[in-house]
Amino acid sequence: MAGEMARELVLIGVGAGDPDWITLEAVRAVQQIDVLFVVLKQDNLDDLVEARREIIRRHRTRPLRIVELNDPPRPWRTAPDYSAAVARWREQRLAQWSAAVADELGEGRSGGFLVWGDPSLYESTLTIARELVGSAQAAGTPIALRVIPGVSSVLALAARHQIPLNRQGRAVQITPARLLREGLPPGIDDAVVMLDGRQTFASIDPTGIDIYWGAYLGTPDEILIGGPLSQVAQQILDARAAALERKGWVFDSYLLRRR
Amino acid sequence: MAGEMARELVLIGVGAGDPDWITLEAVRAVQQIDVLFVVLKQDNLDDLVEARREIIRRHRTRPLRIVELNDPPRPWRTAPDYSAAVARWREQRLAQWSAAVADELGEGRSGGFLVWGDPSLYESTLTIARELVGSAQAAGTPIALRVIPGVSSVLALAARHQIPLNRQGRAVQITPARLLREGLPPGIDDAVVMLDGRQTFASIDPTGIDIYWGAYLGTPDEILIGGPLSQVAQQILDARAAALERKGWVFDSYLLRRR
Ligand SMILES: C[S@@+](CC[C@H](N)C(=O)[O-])C[C@H]1O[C@@H](n2cnc3c(N)ncnc32)[C@H](O)[C@@H]1O
Ligand SMILES: C[S@@+](CC[C@H](N)C(=O)[O-])C[C@H]1O[C@@H](n2cnc3c(N)ncnc32)[C@H](O)[C@@H]1O
Repeated sequence: MAGEMARELVLIGVGAGDPDWITLEAVRAVQQIDVLFVVLKQDNLDDLVEARREIIRRHRTRPLRIVELNDPPRPWRTAPDYSAAVARWREQRLAQWSAAVADELGEGRSGGFLVWGDPSLYESTLTIARELVGSAQAAGTPIALRVIPGVSSVLALAARHQIPLNRQGRAVQITPARLLREGLPPGIDDAVVMLDGRQTFASIDPTGIDIYWGAYLGTPDEILIGGPLSQVAQQILDARAAALERKGWVFDSYLLRRR
Repeated sequence: MAGEMARELVLIGVGAGDPDWITLEAVRAVQQIDVLFVVLKQDNLDDLVEARREIIRRHRTRPLRIVELNDPPRPWRTAPDYSAAVARWREQRLAQWSAAVADELGEGRSGGFLVWGDPSLYESTLTIARELVGSAQAAGTPIALRVIPGVSSVLALAARHQIPLNRQGRAVQITPARLLREGLPPGIDDAVVMLDGRQTFASIDPTGIDIYWGAYLGTPDEILIGGPLSQVAQQILDARAAALERKGWVFDSYLLRRR
């Protein structure tokens, strides 16, 4: 049990689009934290920054101290000795976060991170926070960690299409697009695909596959398209390209389901 | 677009344990529906009935009309011609729900169902609601459907263990326990297992597998055990048996992760 003076980090899952997808636990955390850590990445999207601000505006009644963490630039995949570069980058990042937390999170204080959707799915914040807490522990200055689950885009996709993710008695996979380059792996009949920057759905064999695609889920820009992949792939490509043109970025995910 | 007088069914995901895991959208729906449909199954768990009542008590300020739907008893798996029996059972159930909705959901009214966790994962309510809406449409008395996502036990499990569900760049599967009888399928290294009435984790080859197990997640009875499967399986079996003895039922799920 943490003592009175223990410091705490809270990862606050805030839902993946609709501001009303935030939970009461997350709202309470936003109200109670003493400082908010904001990770600045190079590819920060204005709309997501704005969504975060809106959460603070709506739910935070007292002023909130904000501390920015500048993520060092991630090494390119083409860098010489990529894995050493990544290891070095992770060390730098951890050192930077640790220093900021040491400086800004006083005894008995609680520091929050707002995490898009749910903190356990395709997010590095949780991994780094665990490292940070581990190294603080080793240094004799323990920090407690708390993780608040949130409505992931995976669940948002299903809700907006009004479909079950699993079929009766069956499994469903959640996967990054890059593992689907060859199509749905054998034995996988239902897969939710995330992080697709290359429209992988349009380059796999569509035979016998339905797709349920959603972009900007839960927002006023939401687009939903569903149907046999062979019939709707082009329509999705067009809608996605038009949206990208209009907004400058896309967040999309989709369920592939073998008939 | 639904007209003024359109009827609506709303499936309200309420989160999978902690009452504070409910979203603002779900709270609003609880406040706004005109009638709540409650499905009574034969194996209804008092604690879940109580959790539902608590949600109504906390968030509903006006009186709420409650209509009970008695699910017909599900045929046994050992019934002669099981699949015909299931088909008949589904028809009966649909007829019963349709009649109740026809009787109790007036023009322009909104009827809600509270769904544990998220409506898209291992729930029949969404499937039946879709059938119902389909047959109402065919009968010329359309009903709109709305699905509100919620914090699934899958996400709750990860949050409480403070672990990512996916490893960097990798997939994660969500699966009913009965597909795991032979262990983690080849190519599946991370799987969240639900609906395990037989402690499947203890009968598979534990070599190289870690387990993160949680029961009654988000409730005062929560139990968390994690570690190498070979070392903690017995501890989980004991904790589960003791909890079952004490409470009469268990809700548990777990992540299996190949090292
Ligand atoms: C870095 S991951 C973060 C996922 C997040 N933790 C969650 O639980 O939804 C970002 C990916 O999530 C998906 N995503 C997130 N929000 C989305 C939204 N509102 N609509 C569609 N896809 C979304 C997209 O596939 C995107 O590439
Ligand atoms: C019929 S399924 C419903 C799942 C629900 N729709 C969800 O999103 O969590 C019931 C299964 O969910 C899991 N489950 C639900 N609530 C849980 C909790 N609080 N703790 C652990 N497991 C839970 C268990 O595996 C249980 O057998």
